[in-house]
Amino acid sequence: MRSKAPLIQNITNFVAMNIMANVMLAAGASPAMVHAREEGADFTAIANGLSINIGTLDAEWADCMINAAQAAHQNQKPWVLDPVAVGATAFRQEVAKKLLAHKPTIIRGNASEILALSGATAQGRGADSADPVQAAEDGAGQLARDLRTIVAVTGPVDYVTDGNQAARIANGHPLMPKVTALGCALTGIVTAFATTNDPFNGTVTALAYYGLAGEMAAKTANGPGSFQPAFLDALHNLGGGDLDAGARITPA
Amino acid sequence: MRSKAPLIQNITNFVAMNIMANVMLAAGASPAMVHAREEGADFTAIANGLSINIGTLDAEWADCMINAAQAAHQNQKPWVLDPVAVGATAFRQEVAKKLLAHKPTIIRGNASEILALSGATAQGRGADSADPVQAAEDGAGQLARDLRTIVAVTGPVDYVTDGNQAARIANGHPLMPKVTALGCALTGIVTAFATTNDPFNGTVTALAYYGLAGEMAAKTANGPGSFQPAFLDALHNLGGGDLDAGARITPA
Amino acid sequence: MRSKAPLIQNITNFVAMNIMANVMLAAGASPAMVHAREEGADFTAIANGLSINIGTLDAEWADCMINAAQAAHQNQKPWVLDPVAVGATAFRQEVAKKLLAHKPTIIRGNASEILALSGATAQGRGADSADPVQAAEDGAGQLARDLRTIVAVTGPVDYVTDGNQAARIANGHPLMPKVTALGCALTGIVTAFATTNDPFNGTVTALAYYGLAGEMAAKTANGPGSFQPAFLDALHNLGGGDLDAGARITPA
Repeated sequence: MRSKAPLIQNITNFVAMNIMANVMLAAGASPAMVHAREEGADFTAIANGLSINIGTLDAEWADCMINAAQAAHQNQKPWVLDPVAVGATAFRQEVAKKLLAHKPTIIRGNASEILALSGATAQGRGADSADPVQAAEDGAGQLARDLRTIVAVTGPVDYVTDGNQAARIANGHPLMPKVTALGCALTGIVTAFATTNDPFNGTVTALAYYGLAGEMAAKTANGPGSFQPAFLDALHNLGGGDLDAGARITPA
Repeated sequence: MRSKAPLIQNITNFVAMNIMANVMLAAGASPAMVHAREEGADFTAIANGLSINIGTLDAEWADCMINAAQAAHQNQKPWVLDPVAVGATAFRQEVAKKLLAHKPTIIRGNASEILALSGATAQGRGADSADPVQAAEDGAGQLARDLRTIVAVTGPVDYVTDGNQAARIANGHPLMPKVTALGCALTGIVTAFATTNDPFNGTVTALAYYGLAGEMAAKTANGPGSFQPAFLDALHNLGGGDLDAGARITPA
Repeated sequence: MRSKAPLIQNITNFVAMNIMANVMLAAGASPAMVHAREEGADFTAIANGLSINIGTLDAEWADCMINAAQAAHQNQKPWVLDPVAVGATAFRQEVAKKLLAHKPTIIRGNASEILALSGATAQGRGADSADPVQAAEDGAGQLARDLRTIVAVTGPVDYVTDGNQAARIANGHPLMPKVTALGCALTGIVTAFATTNDPFNGTVTALAYYGLAGEMAAKTANGPGSFQPAFLDALHNLGGGDLDAGARITPA
C-alpha cells in the first residue's frame, strides 16, 4: 500500500478529520477530506477509494455521501462504510439504508453498530459499543451474505467475514478506545488497504497492522495523551517484517 | 463520575471537537458530538447531560442548540452553556439570549464573556479574555441570581457562584491557554461532573481537577505542544487522593 | 509579531482548524476561527488580519469567504489566500476566481496549486503537490505581477516573489508534510507576520521561522506523531537569535 500512496476521499465526521488524516499520512496513504455537495462525487471519480463515516451527519452531508457512494460504485472504486452510532436515531438509520443500496465494498463498525445494521436490537448509545464483538458475529455473516460485502466488527478481538470465510484478529490495546476517533481513522486505513488488496485480505491485514501499532505505542505511553503521538510514530515506523512477526490472525 | 461514564452530548465548535472528546475520554466520560437539526434534540433525550458552545456558530447550528437546550430543560438533564466570544458580534448575542431562555444549569466562560452576558461592557475580542476574572465577579453573581444558575468565570484563579455562595479555585498553569480549546473542553468536564454531583460542588470539583491536571502536566512539558499529551495523561491518571491533596479551593 | 499578539480571523478547513489554532497560539498570535455567513465580515472589521483556506469548501462557506475577503480589502487589512487543491474541481476554481477579485495581500500554496491558479496545467490531485516548486516559479512571478500580490510557493525549498524580487527559503524537514494541515497552519503564521511587517519580508521571515522550528522538532522526533508536539514546542521556544542564526534565505 505504502509504495502506491493511494488517494483516499474521506467523508467523515468533524471529530475524526484531523486524526484520521494524520493516521493515513503516517501509514503512507494520501487522504483528502472532500464532502461538499458541489464536488463530492466529482472527486470520487479521481480518488482511488472512498470512506464514508456518518458520525456527524446532517441533511446536506447525507446527500453528498449518497452521491459519492453511487459514484464509487459506478466507477468500481472500493468504498467503505463506517456506520457510527447508526442505532441512535431514526435519521441515521434512514441514511444508512440509502448508503447500503450503493453496495459498500466493506462495512466496518463496532458490535452495537453492526447489530443495529443487521436489524437486531443493539445497546450502543453513542459512538461507543455496549455489546461484545461475539454478539454481532452472526449478524455480520448474514449482512455480508445479503449485501455481498465484507463486514468487520472491531473490538478487543476483531471479526472479519465475507459471509463464507471469517477471521479473528487479536492485535490491539485497551488505550486505543481512550483516544477519540481511532476507530473512524481505522476505516480510512481499511480503505487504503482495499485499493491494493482484495477486500477480505486487505481488511484483515489492515486490522492486524493497526492493532500491532497500538501494541507498540502502548510500550512507551503513560496514558491516552502520550499514546496518540506514539501510535502515529508506530504506524509510520512499522515494517512488513514487524507485521509478519506480530500479527495475531486466526481463521474463525 | 468515572464509575458512571456519563454519556454527554456536546454541541461544540469545530476547533474544540477532537480535543474535547479526548479530554472527556481521558477523564472517564463518554462524549458524543451530535449537532444536526435532524437529530440533536432526539439525542438529548438519551444523553445524561448536554454542553453547548457557540464558538463556531451559524444559523442552522443555532437552531439545533436551541432545540437541544429546550429538550434538556424539559427532560431535567443538566446542561451547560459556554458563551464563546459572545460579545464579538450581534449574531452571537442574539443566539445566547435565546439559549438563556432555556435555563442553563451552569454557565462557564472567561471574564470578558461573562461580562458581556451580564450586560456590562467587555473587552474580549475573540476567544481570549481581555478582562481579569475579578472584574466579572459582580456580574457573575447577578447573572446567577437572575437566571437561577451557577456561573463559573475561569482564568488564572477561577470564580464559581450560585448567586449566594461562591468559591475560588487557584489550580491551573499558564500553558493551559496556549493550547486551543482547553477552555471549551473544560465545559464538557463540568457537564460530566454535573451529572453525578449538585451543580455548584460539581463545578468547583471539576475546575480543581482540571487545573490540577494542568499543574501535573506542566512538570514534564517543554512548551504547549508537549503539554497537551501530558495533560491528557494527567486527566487519566489523577486519582481522588491526588485531588484531595492538591485542590486549592477557598470560599469567596 | 509576538509582542503584538495580532487577532487573526481564519476561515479554514475542518481538518486544519485545531492544529492551525495551536500553531498560531504557540507562535504568539491570537487566532479566531469565524466563518458563519451571519458574522464573517463583521468579524473581519475587528481582526488585524484574515486568512482564507478553501480546503473543505461548500456553497455557504464560499459566500462567507468572499464577503470577508471584500471586507478585508475595503478595511485595508492584510489577507492571505491558501488555494487548497484548487485544480481538483471546477467548483474550487470558480470560488478561487471570485476571491482573487478582492486582491489578496499574499497567496501561499504548493506548486500544483500555484500552477493551477496561474492557468497552467498542474498534476496535484488532493492537498499534496505533484509538481516541484521550481516548475511553479515563472507562474508565481506572473501571478504576482498580474494581481499585484506576493506569491509564496512552499515545498522542500520555498520560493517567494512580488513579481520583481524573489527569495528562496531552504529551512524545513521531510516530516512536515507527514503531519496534516501544517501547510494550512503556515498560512495563518504568514498572515500574522504580515500584520506587523511589509508583506514580502513578512512572508519570507514567516517561512524561515516555520521551517527552522521543523528542523528543531525533528531532532527529537521518532516519527510524525512525536514530531507534532515537538514542533509546537519549537514554535513557542524559538527566539529571534535562533532565527538569525538558522534562517537559510537567499535572493532568487
